[in-house]
Parts: sequence; structure tokens; C-alpha cells
Amino acid sequence: MGQYPDAQRRNTAAAVSSTGSKLDSYVDRYATRTHGMTASEVRSLFAVASRPEVVSLAGGMPNISGLPLDVVGSLLSELIEKRGTTALQYGSGQGDPQLREQICDVMRPVGVHGHPDDVTVTVGSQQALDLITRIFIDPGDVILAEAPSYVGALSTFRSYQADVVHVEMDDDGLVPERVRQAIATVQASGRTIKFLYTIPNYHNPAGVTLTAQRRQEILGICQDAGVLIVEDDPYGLLGFDGDVPRAMRADDPEGVIYLGSFSKTFAPGFRVGWTLAPHAVREKLVLAAESSVLCPPAFSQLAVSEYLSGHDWRGQVKAFRELYRERCDAMLGALDDLMPAGAHWTRPRGGFYVWLTLPAGLDTKAMLPRAVTNRVAYVPGTAFYADGFGSRSMRLSFCYPTPDRIREGVRRLAQVIEQEMELRAAFGAAGASQRPGLDAPAPDQA
Amino acid sequence: MGQYPDAQRRNTAAAVSSTGSKLDSYVDRYATRTHGMTASEVRSLFAVASRPEVVSLAGGMPNISGLPLDVVGSLLSELIEKRGTTALQYGSGQGDPQLREQICDVMRPVGVHGHPDDVTVTVGSQQALDLITRIFIDPGDVILAEAPSYVGALSTFRSYQADVVHVEMDDDGLVPERVRQAIATVQASGRTIKFLYTIPNYHNPAGVTLTAQRRQEILGICQDAGVLIVEDDPYGLLGFDGDVPRAMRADDPEGVIYLGSFSKTFAPGFRVGWTLAPHAVREKLVLAAESSVLCPPAFSQLAVSEYLSGHDWRGQVKAFRELYRERCDAMLGALDDLMPAGAHWTRPRGGFYVWLTLPAGLDTKAMLPRAVTNRVAYVPGTAFYADGFGSRSMRLSFCYPTPDRIREGVRRLAQVIEQEMELRAAFGAAGASQRPGLDAPAPDQA
Repeated sequence: MGQYPDAQRRNTAAAVSSTGSKLDSYVDRYATRTHGMTASEVRSLFAVASRPEVVSLAGGMPNISGLPLDVVGSLLSELIEKRGTTALQYGSGQGDPQLREQICDVMRPVGVHGHPDDVTVTVGSQQALDLITRIFIDPGDVILAEAPSYVGALSTFRSYQADVVHVEMDDDGLVPERVRQAIATVQASGRTIKFLYTIPNYHNPAGVTLTAQRRQEILGICQDAGVLIVEDDPYGLLGFDGDVPRAMRADDPEGVIYLGSFSKTFAPGFRVGWTLAPHAVREKLVLAAESSVLCPPAFSQLAVSEYLSGHDWRGQVKAFRELYRERCDAMLGALDDLMPAGAHWTRPRGGFYVWLTLPAGLDTKAMLPRAVTNRVAYVPGTAFYADGFGSRSMRLSFCYPTPDRIREGVRRLAQVIEQEMELRAAFGAAGASQRPGLDAPAPDQA
Repeated sequence: MGQYPDAQRRNTAAAVSSTGSKLDSYVDRYATRTHGMTASEVRSLFAVASRPEVVSLAGGMPNISGLPLDVVGSLLSELIEKRGTTALQYGSGQGDPQLREQICDVMRPVGVHGHPDDVTVTVGSQQALDLITRIFIDPGDVILAEAPSYVGALSTFRSYQADVVHVEMDDDGLVPERVRQAIATVQASGRTIKFLYTIPNYHNPAGVTLTAQRRQEILGICQDAGVLIVEDDPYGLLGFDGDVPRAMRADDPEGVIYLGSFSKTFAPGFRVGWTLAPHAVREKLVLAAESSVLCPPAFSQLAVSEYLSGHDWRGQVKAFRELYRERCDAMLGALDDLMPAGAHWTRPRGGFYVWLTLPAGLDTKAMLPRAVTNRVAYVPGTAFYADGFGSRSMRLSFCYPTPDRIREGVRRLAQVIEQEMELRAAFGAAGASQRPGLDAPAPDQA
């Protein structure tokens, strides 16, 4: 697989004027930060992609078909019986104390030894990202992010008018020298870098994992430059071999804010995630959380707490790993067998996603309607960049469909790509799509 | 009861520099909006107020002791059994479609006929406030709020660096002429008013209710001036007589965004609220919600949905009304019997709160430590103003303690007030407290 495009990108996250309309009497009144908040035309295609005849390789919904619903049902009735008035009441803005202790246990395998007082429970990791951005980012502040990066994070960063600078990755994750260069360039221009945002394990969308060696290098680079690291780790326990990479936070408690989530290791429906942050940061995070939601849902937290203490949750994670490994194998096998020459892709060792790059001249965003017509969906690469890049690539999810459906989806996709290549050979390369707006499916579109 | 202080207030929501510290290596890196985010010294007093020997009249925790936990428990097991994979999965950023329909039914008694597509489910009303502020407010934009106003809203407004201008209320709620004057003054100064934030029913913290006549006047004033109204209605179904005041939204669907919540009519632990907004606004709200939490918890929503369809929830609301009426009677009776002359208070006909104002020269924030020493707690009035006013007043909650404890609390409070009055008579009036920071208890401090 070739390298990702160069780290030096011109940021196009500048305000785009909202499309005024006679239908919107408030058009002059929205805040400046909303100018980037539009759902692109691609969004509506994902609604179509949810139809059963379409093989969707687009969504990131965890496969929870294997969860023992009867066990969960009994845990919940017991919860109401034993602790109903607590579960149904307002709780602490920082989150349930017992759950925060359990979260510290959950983090031990990744080498992190945190204190429950430094843990803040959030409404999923997404809210953690939102709160961290809220407390650190003034409009125009720079955030370093991988190229590509997680669409939900980019959306949050945009809503606080941050300037996102993408930094190159390759098969081993973020490239340390590119981090160094990006920091030097940004600082030389007089701008402030507030943090580096990274998903080191089984990256969404790229599928790659940052090597142990590079983690140390990047920690050193950021420490020297005084750049905070925000380490987002929803998939760390979902390595197919059962390997659990050591978190960056384990080697730098003061310089790294760690984000975790139960969405992929248990289930997303409760929306329970957390941050582990240095004390002073944690204080501000809690105040920000209180002004945003007052407190995270008590019921959700106690449900997760009961699950952790009352069920073999680690055994369930192991079952999930097997399920995802089988699907990843199906996808990689199908790609190996069916993709035309000139396409290349990452080979993840965990998580949910493969990052596929097409030959030069193809545009995955422009191609999506034709793919959906051929009854397969993916997420165009442009969704994962703040600066318009990514049009040669796409993210393929293997987490949700069956192995047979995955193979069928890749087959349909390969057909579309081949047709596209023939068109290009006949008529020339497509212009790059640079239309603004959110190119990603909604959270529940599979 | 005398009138609330004049509407023309100098706003002191300007940035306060954060207190730097050797313990906080990030002190130079926080965003400007965090400068107002501190918990005042008063916060720690509320932790003391949670101790059983203290009668806390401070907290706003709904009294859910009467909820039928066995019924809720069975509803939840059935939910997992019938719809477990949906309840445990990611959902739509706008919220569960069936719940949105049910919410439209819930709103009918207040005269609102909304469409499910204009409803957005939020993580409590607090998140609705956060999202609305996020999509409308640029730093320096003006928000008109009642004098006093809800502490959670003020905190959110502050976090987006809005300029809050308080507008006078009296026993019948917001004073229309003062609204008109405030609009004229602000607009003459060249500033932009984005919206008027109001809690028309059983106001938190003031306890008063806006009359029907004034609702029409204020709707007219705001329509003429092009000022949006944000109508926050958590207590609308909790009038002691069973009266349900007609919502402002009922008479102006385009000019009013309506906020509702299940926290007081069912339970807070699921964190389920909603907005009803004009279509174009709703679109932006959903995008903002997605970048903030991806989607509200599916489990919480389906739990509320099952409760609404599977249980006599209106009968439960009626039971809550009785419970709160009994407690309000106890409080008003105790105040009538025990308060020294010169104190005056509101007489709510629903909701959770009484607003007590002390004779001139007393400072309720300075007095709080002495009250807690005398084993009673309240929330000082300054918590409910963005501009430092309110030091003669306090909010008393009757929702949570038993009627006997309420009476005892008022007795202890009256003692403290009398001592304070003697001190003032001997030594002169206290200076007004203008220290910055959040003077309110945490959500779960009763």
C-alpha cells in the first residue's frame, strides 16, 4: 500500500456561507460555527443504502447479535429492584463512582493505571471529544489529526471552528517525522497547536495500528513541543489475536488524555464512554459536561456497571473478536480475489474497517450513486478529511454484514470500479469533488 | 411581593482570567470560553448539605419514591426481550421515530400540535439548551433571560460567551413592558438579540407562572422585534390543581422553540428530553446533536417509550402533583408562621420552588455557611443571575424532603435569618458578594 498524501495541507475548514432560503426565516441568525454544518447530498444516499437489497459496507454499527439478551434483561430487572431509585435519579456530573472504579480496571490491560477521580463518564466517546474540544479550542486553534481521521471527530472540531491539519499515516500508523514537520510548520506560522488527535488502534477509517516504537517517538516529539495528545481508543480490546497494544497514556499520564468507550465492547445503546485526564483538565471537563447535559444518564451507567460485575464481559469481547475476525478475513479474501489491479488496501489486525484506495483518476464520492445503483454502499474517503482530500479512497466496514454478504458486496463494488476504470480510460479522469458538507452516514445507518 | 430589580443591568459575563497554578500545566491552553467555568466556593458547601443531618432545601431532585419500580422493572425486561437489539444499538441522531410521535401526544394538553419530524430527542432539556445555544450564539450575542433565570441555562449561555440581559419578573412572571424596553435598549446599542429564554410555568427558581394575557403580549412584542422565543417547560404538567397552562408555542409555531422533558414527569435517570422547532432549525439541531453525542441513548428512549405506552403515566403525574402540593403547602405554611417580618416570598401553584427575598442589607451567599452550620441549605440567589445580582434572595426547594423536614428546615433557616438581622442591626449591612463562579449545587445534590 502506498503512503497517504503529504502532511502539508491547506486547511479548508473556513466558514462557508449557509445556503439562504425562503423556507428558513432564521437564515441570518445562526452562529458562524454552523456554516460548516450541512449534510451533503451523499447523506441521502445512505438512507437508500439501508434497504435490504443493498449490501452496505458503509456503516459502523457493532454486531451485537451475539449479546446474551436474556442475561442483560435479568441484570436490568435486578438493577431496578436493587438500585432503582438511584438508577432513575439525577447523578453526579462526573459519573457514578463505582463505575469509574470499574473503568480503571477495564483500562489495566492497556497498561493504564488511572485513578477513579481522574475519570469522567461521558455520553459515549463522542461527547468526550466534544467536551475536550470545548475546553481547549478557540476558533482558529490548530488540531493535528491523522490523514484520514474519524469523521465524528472532524465534525466536532469543525463545530468549534478549529483549524485541522492532517498528518500522514502509512501501514504502521502516524509517521513520526511528519508529526515533527507539521508541528514545526504550524508553529512557524505563528498559530497555536492545542492537541494531536490520534486513534492508534485499528484506526477508523484506515484500519492501521500505530507501532509501539512509533508511539514512543511521537510521545517524545509531542512532549518536546508541548503538544497535548488526545488518544481515542474504542477498539483497543478488539484485536483479532487477542493482543492489546499498550496505550500511549500508559507512558505519559500528564501529556495524554485517554478516551474509552463501551460501545464496541458491550453495546452502543447505553451511550457510555469515558475520559481519563489530568486533574485540572478533569475539573473543567466536568463543568463543561454539567453545562451540556447536567449529568450522564444514571440508568445507562448502572446498567453497564451491573454488566461488568455480573457477567463474563471479557468472554463476550472474545466472542466479538472472533466474529469480527471472520468478517475481516472474508473481506480481505474477497478484495484479494476480486479487486482490479491498481487498487490497494490496508490489512487491519482488529477493529471494523479497511481503507481501500483506487487507481488515480477515480473519484469515490462521484462513484457512490453508481455503487448504490449496483446495490453496494461504502463511505467516500472525503468524509474523513477536513480539507477536501480523500477522493481516491473509501472506507469499507466489515463489522455488520455476514461473511457471504461481505463477499457479495465486494463483488458488486469491484464491478462498479471496473466500469469506472473503463469510463476513465475512455473519457479521462474525473475532476476532484470538493463540495462541502458531511459525507458520512448517520450513526444508525448500517 | 415587591418587584424584581430593574431590567437594565450591566452585564458582567465578560471573561475572567483563569486562576493559574503550578498544579495545572495546561493553564495557558484552555479556550477563552472556560474562563467563566469555575465552581465557586459555595459548591463545596453543597457537598456538606448532602449529609443526613442537614435539611437541604437546595436541590432540585424530583421525588421519585412513588414510582412503581416493579412495573418499570418488568417494562424493561420486556423491552430487552422484544426489542433488545434496537435498544442496545446506535440510533438516529434525531431520536427514535416512535418516541417522537408519542412526544407529540404528550404535548397536546399544552395546546401544541407538533409534527414528529420537527421533534428532536435530546439528552435531557439541558442538552436541548446547549444545542440551541450552539447553533444560534456567537460570542457577544445577546440572550434575554428572566430575572432570575435557571442556573443550568445561564451556565450554558456563559459557555458560549453570550451576553445575558436579565428582564424583570413579578408575581405574574415576565413583565411585558420590561421586555419591550430591554429589546429597545439592546438594539439601540447595536447588539444582536438572538432569543428570549423563558420558563413560563412554575418557574425555576422563582416559582411564578406567566399569565395567559402576558403570553400573548410577549409573543406580539417578540414577533414585532424579530426575536425568537425559547420556551423551556419541564414543569408544565405539574400544576397542583391539574391546570395545564397553554404553551406559547401553541400560538406561534414559527417564532417559538419548545423544550420538554421527562425528568420531572417520569424520572431523570434516563436523561430524555426534546425540542420542537421549525424545520430548518431542526435540521441544524440534529447535525449539532450528532457532532456532540452521535445520537441520544437508544435504551433510554425505548424505556421511556415503553413506559408511556405500557403504563398509566398520566396517573403517575397526578400522584406526583399531589406529592408536590403537599410539600408546597408545608413550605408556605412554615414560611407564613416562622419567617421574620421584612422577608417576602412567591406562592407557586406548581413545580418545585419558592423564591424568598430577605430584608435589605442581608446577603444570602455570605449567609450560606452559617445556614449550613445550622444544618439547613438553600441556593443563594446569585446563582440565578449572570450579572451578580440576587444576593438578597434564595431559592427554596420543596420537592424532595418530607413535609415535617421542610418545616424543620424553614425553622432553622428562620433562626439564621433572625441572627443575621440582629448582626446587621448591630454592625451595618454586608457588602454585596460579587465573586465569580457557579453558585449552584451539582445535579445530584439534594
